[in-house]
Amino acid sequence: MRSDEQAIRDLIANWARASAAGDLPQILSAMSEDVVFLTPGNPPMRGREGFAAAFQSLANVHLEATNDIQEIQVSGDMAYAWTSLTVTVTPKNGGSPTRRTGYTLTVYRKLADGTWVLSRDANLLGPPEPVKD
Amino acid sequence: MRSDEQAIRDLIANWARASAAGDLPQILSAMSEDVVFLTPGNPPMRGREGFAAAFQSLANVHLEATNDIQEIQVSGDMAYAWTSLTVTVTPKNGGSPTRRTGYTLTVYRKLADGTWVLSRDANLLGPPEPVKD
Repeated sequence: MRSDEQAIRDLIANWARASAAGDLPQILSAMSEDVVFLTPGNPPMRGREGFAAAFQSLANVHLEATNDIQEIQVSGDMAYAWTSLTVTVTPKNGGSPTRRTGYTLTVYRKLADGTWVLSRDANLLGPPEPVKD
Repeated sequence: MRSDEQAIRDLIANWARASAAGDLPQILSAMSEDVVFLTPGNPPMRGREGFAAAFQSLANVHLEATNDIQEIQVSGDMAYAWTSLTVTVTPKNGGSPTRRTGYTLTVYRKLADGTWVLSRDANLLGPPEPVKD
């Protein structure tokens, strides 16, 4: 049987794949209904609807996220992970790509059916920088 | 007996009191030895030594932190809280105070002796702004 830690690693990898593919339903299924996203300078974004609106505003770009997992710890039906995250944003119309880097601290919850979902997320990505190379 | 949630509320309140009093040993005792602090635009700060150095660089200011706790959840020996944080910094030499506001997402761990300590912290405070009033 897959360990809780491996389930969370898979969730993180699937999230990045679904972001690259623009697969919003897949991402929404990986977060709790009461999810909260915290980002610098913004009010908390609560619930799947807010995420969906933000994601749909990115329809004209390709997202590539690389998550370097620093730590995962599990206690019962709660877990956290922190990662070093790089997100590269490339306009689909051929414009110049930009890159944001920073750290994340994320809390996961195990649902009654044993599925892990993202429930609270602090995303400390910095501002977009030109991609050099 | 005090609940785990109440113990974490007390920790948060004691931390703010100790910050205002400049009581570094009290704050250090409220964090795990392997503590990690994440802030926007900075590398992770690991361990008590990094915090102590940063705190000591604030010897010439008075800190007043107000934490509006949005949520605390506990699972076994792990817990998280997120808060709306305001930190007012007043120079002791009489200069103008500044204020930083933002959100925090924090993971706490229960030690073998039953004490809760802060172990992972993402602090999304914005830049200092002049205090208006």
